[in-house]
Amino acid sequence: MGVGSNTDGMSPKITLELLRQLRQAMKSSKYVSEPIQAYIIPSGDAHQSEYIAPCDCRREFISGFNGSAGTAIVTEQHAAMWTDGRYFLQASQQMDSNWTLMKMGLKETLTQEDWLISVLPENSRVGVDPWIIAADQWKSMAKALSGAGHSLVAVQENLIDAIWVDRPARPSTQLIALGLKYTGLTWQEKVVALRSKMSERKISWFVVTALDEIAWLFNLRGSDIEYNPVFFAYAIVGMRTIRLFIDEKRMVNADVREHLQLDTPSSSELSIQLAPYESVHSELCAICAGLGPREKVWISDKASCALTEAIPKVHRSLIPYTPLCLSKAVKNPTEIQGMKMAHIKDAVALCELFAWLEKEIPKGTVTEISAADKAEEFRSQQLDFVGLSFPTISSVGPNGAIIHYRPLPETNRTLTLKEIYLIDSGAQYRDGTTDVTRTVHFGTPSAYEKECFTYVLKGHIAVSAAIFPNGTKGHLLDSFARSALWDCGLDYLHGTGHGVGCFLNVHEGPCGISYKTFADEPLESGMILSDEPGYYEDGSFGIRIENVVLVVPAKPKYNYRNRGSLTFEPVTLVPIQVKMINTEMLTQKERDWLNEYHRQCRDIVGAELERQGRKEALDWLIRETQPIA
Amino acid sequence: MGVGSNTDGMSPKITLELLRQLRQAMKSSKYVSEPIQAYIIPSGDAHQSEYIAPCDCRREFISGFNGSAGTAIVTEQHAAMWTDGRYFLQASQQMDSNWTLMKMGLKETLTQEDWLISVLPENSRVGVDPWIIAADQWKSMAKALSGAGHSLVAVQENLIDAIWVDRPARPSTQLIALGLKYTGLTWQEKVVALRSKMSERKISWFVVTALDEIAWLFNLRGSDIEYNPVFFAYAIVGMRTIRLFIDEKRMVNADVREHLQLDTPSSSELSIQLAPYESVHSELCAICAGLGPREKVWISDKASCALTEAIPKVHRSLIPYTPLCLSKAVKNPTEIQGMKMAHIKDAVALCELFAWLEKEIPKGTVTEISAADKAEEFRSQQLDFVGLSFPTISSVGPNGAIIHYRPLPETNRTLTLKEIYLIDSGAQYRDGTTDVTRTVHFGTPSAYEKECFTYVLKGHIAVSAAIFPNGTKGHLLDSFARSALWDCGLDYLHGTGHGVGCFLNVHEGPCGISYKTFADEPLESGMILSDEPGYYEDGSFGIRIENVVLVVPAKPKYNYRNRGSLTFEPVTLVPIQVKMINTEMLTQKERDWLNEYHRQCRDIVGAELERQGRKEALDWLIRETQPIA
Repeated sequence: MGVGSNTDGMSPKITLELLRQLRQAMKSSKYVSEPIQAYIIPSGDAHQSEYIAPCDCRREFISGFNGSAGTAIVTEQHAAMWTDGRYFLQASQQMDSNWTLMKMGLKETLTQEDWLISVLPENSRVGVDPWIIAADQWKSMAKALSGAGHSLVAVQENLIDAIWVDRPARPSTQLIALGLKYTGLTWQEKVVALRSKMSERKISWFVVTALDEIAWLFNLRGSDIEYNPVFFAYAIVGMRTIRLFIDEKRMVNADVREHLQLDTPSSSELSIQLAPYESVHSELCAICAGLGPREKVWISDKASCALTEAIPKVHRSLIPYTPLCLSKAVKNPTEIQGMKMAHIKDAVALCELFAWLEKEIPKGTVTEISAADKAEEFRSQQLDFVGLSFPTISSVGPNGAIIHYRPLPETNRTLTLKEIYLIDSGAQYRDGTTDVTRTVHFGTPSAYEKECFTYVLKGHIAVSAAIFPNGTKGHLLDSFARSALWDCGLDYLHGTGHGVGCFLNVHEGPCGISYKTFADEPLESGMILSDEPGYYEDGSFGIRIENVVLVVPAKPKYNYRNRGSLTFEPVTLVPIQVKMINTEMLTQKERDWLNEYHRQCRDIVGAELERQGRKEALDWLIRETQPIA
Repeated sequence: MGVGSNTDGMSPKITLELLRQLRQAMKSSKYVSEPIQAYIIPSGDAHQSEYIAPCDCRREFISGFNGSAGTAIVTEQHAAMWTDGRYFLQASQQMDSNWTLMKMGLKETLTQEDWLISVLPENSRVGVDPWIIAADQWKSMAKALSGAGHSLVAVQENLIDAIWVDRPARPSTQLIALGLKYTGLTWQEKVVALRSKMSERKISWFVVTALDEIAWLFNLRGSDIEYNPVFFAYAIVGMRTIRLFIDEKRMVNADVREHLQLDTPSSSELSIQLAPYESVHSELCAICAGLGPREKVWISDKASCALTEAIPKVHRSLIPYTPLCLSKAVKNPTEIQGMKMAHIKDAVALCELFAWLEKEIPKGTVTEISAADKAEEFRSQQLDFVGLSFPTISSVGPNGAIIHYRPLPETNRTLTLKEIYLIDSGAQYRDGTTDVTRTVHFGTPSAYEKECFTYVLKGHIAVSAAIFPNGTKGHLLDSFARSALWDCGLDYLHGTGHGVGCFLNVHEGPCGISYKTFADEPLESGMILSDEPGYYEDGSFGIRIENVVLVVPAKPKYNYRNRGSLTFEPVTLVPIQVKMINTEMLTQKERDWLNEYHRQCRDIVGAELERQGRKEALDWLIRETQPIA
């Protein structure tokens, strides 16, 4: 799946009074030494997470708009919201007339900087919470404003929090310690590997700010943020010390204490010092005060302005992808095994779902919401199920054309024999994270629907079967997914693939397959990504075919300059509906790929269905995996 | 063709005495207020030209290395040369033992910055000529050095010039004024269009520094730099004035004076004020001194540090691609017509060459050099021929694997019936610039040679026949050219295509087809590029198939979101040798493309051969363009 959105509640939020209070706070000496003329409310949390906890939904609180991407700016006269094409409709429905929607990507839309410059009186002060804005965004905004005679100022207390009376508390859920069986490496081994990279680059300290990196490093999981098994914490790793900044209340669990060896007295370089979550800034300042003249501190260039600025420039070493991000992306053999097992269980659940849908749809009682619930029910029966990995996109007919659709009572359509059904869903299991999209028809698809589906399938196969040299970046494969669509004038307006975590976030860097970026890291054997081209006909239907795939070595005929080659191996093993394919449009190579893929689905998932005694789903699987001629 | 190199003279240059003199100058109060500990000698000229005039070959003068890319740095103890993989062998042969070759692209090779930091004593001063270094390079070098306690200083007099006793004079060749028949637009129309873009962006002045932009703007050509019909000049265009900085001696030609309307007394905004070439800096400073507080000056971010710094930061607006660069890239109908005509004449010359080679090669008297000379002779017989557009790459067998090979007496091989022959050549005609590569065998190619050739051909066709949405950047097409090679583990280590000027530089921005960049501008109807995949087997042979292609609208079956689609139309019309193709490896679509291409070659070039009465070449063309089954 792409990037999530939450579209509950489509009537606009009344914001007049809230805006009045915010504007008052912008002038109040309680919060600012001098009044500020504008206040920026970005989407993120202090860890720049993609999904955020309710207490961090500040932009939603002030505006009503709850899409996954958007930045609000409030001045004395205006309130404006920047968001992208996925959310134009939703934002316009959720915001009242006090707000102006700034449609990003349209030529006539001003950037936040240009808009501020156009509306602000001379010498204005623009405020922002330095914990929420990333350092690189701060830098470019500050530069643009100062070029026009204004200034960007850090407002230490968050002004939304100041007016948010019933703001939810920051979650502090129970932690799970993951054993070697799931992780393949102890956290101590990960710390040692990290320190070896630090010492190679002569780095004294590394400030870990991304929640999934902290979870991965310590082999811990939480549930502070829905769909993402992470927990609020920071870590600072030095060559001799490890500091974990976390709510100590959650450290009472004996398993977790044992896992982290908190009660084993030790002077070792591998003992963890706990400190309150809130103390990370002062501790980092204290560490930096004691640095030698040439000592360097690593921090992600996406970290918050507040933490980044805590490191004096001369000691600061900004990195686009941290060593943890890179290590986490290349799955070890245990993680690969876990991801494969999770996908087999996930396929069992989906085979059950499709077999059930076939029976139930003719009765006219299955809706987008009940189908999504049923999918969750089947998944929850599988071993080590923890929860969903993102909100299920369950969409019928025209709803399928809304790329980040999530069914709501007021949009909920019934599944029929007449319309295409697209389901993009996934789960968190203790051994892995899944993400799969299938597009099916329960009656007879039209020739045009089949034609479009087949272009998308050709694109999916073109990526999945691609062979490419070691060192190739994923963005170079993006056009393969589009070529068949482009040939007939079609396209889709999202990327083709994203990195997938192992019982972690369903979106992770640093690799991906998209025309939009150039900064992805080269693909490596062991990386796991999605391959998900699509086609969307507004008002009619949506098509997407998504597998999770593993980067593996390829062995082509030649080996130019001994560089070696890579290709993908499907990890997702759910049949692709043959009924939707115009098989005459496939090349022999494409037919062979499909037959081989279906053989694997049948052999591997079939064996598991048999073991679990799920006879109806097995029958369905066998029927759906017949080879095509 | 890719990026040119000049490989004359393979014995190393003796540089001990020159380096001694340079090091003396680095300490001499005549040139520097305080001694400098290192001096950087970049490749370029003051216009950041790719090809340079002899007087600007300073890096070659000090080191002996004359490849097209390289940067020398001389310290009190060391002399080091950074160049890329194309030139490792050549640089090591041309430089004596006083020099250390720094092989760029290898992991163990330090960057210039890191190397300087590793060898310099504390608080060192590093000098560079601010006219030769681009502003962005200055910025990153200055930042890296200051981070390590050193400083980058501008040395006004070039220290190489100071020790270069017999330095050639700066060329000042005669100018040619191009009429509307060639340009499609008068220079006055171009100035008006430029000013309209300036006024859209509220820009008061535009400093033109790239030589091809100046030539294109004023519809003038020169021959100051071999292969590039440009002349040394700067221009500064304001909303009311046009200043051209140029050696006034070359302005005596009546045609040119008339063309520029120099003698038509006029107070018009379209009258050109001439000023000496050297006065551009002081004039720009004077202009900037008179600017209002919000006035902005456009300059390319690739312009020299000296000129960029002449514009105070508050007035400076750096642009990656100037409006002239963008306008020049999209050819107007007259230019397209001219480019097509030039390519037909060029094809006539190549048909003659190949017919001649077939007759002569069995005699054993044709060499790489004589074949290149013969190609030039045939081209020079064509109307409006001006000269070559780059040094001809004429290579037999293993020499073909040297991507930027240029035949020299000591490397010159004889063309035979046994080895592959690769010729990459092009010319400047008054109506257009050509660039074409053909790879042929005059005997019987091996199965492996045919296999490799066919992969390259499949890549060439994949790009040439690609259909893609309006707004697509060329780099997204690069992988299409490689897919067939990748499938069997092969690849080539250069980009797939570059923009081509119209009777201008054979390499021009801002479009291209390469995995190396993300900053190219989207392809537009009217742009002209090369499509030149290849395969190189070191020590054996080289294969490249290059056409110049025109971006044209495509009309596929559908039109998603009314975006429109584009494709390419071959402008080069020279047969692709069928003997080299394993036709069984081609798809039906590829066969159809080839047959249609050869039909066009036969119809269009055939008619011209007939008109010119070149019977033997016509027979050859007809034989070589028989359709394949």
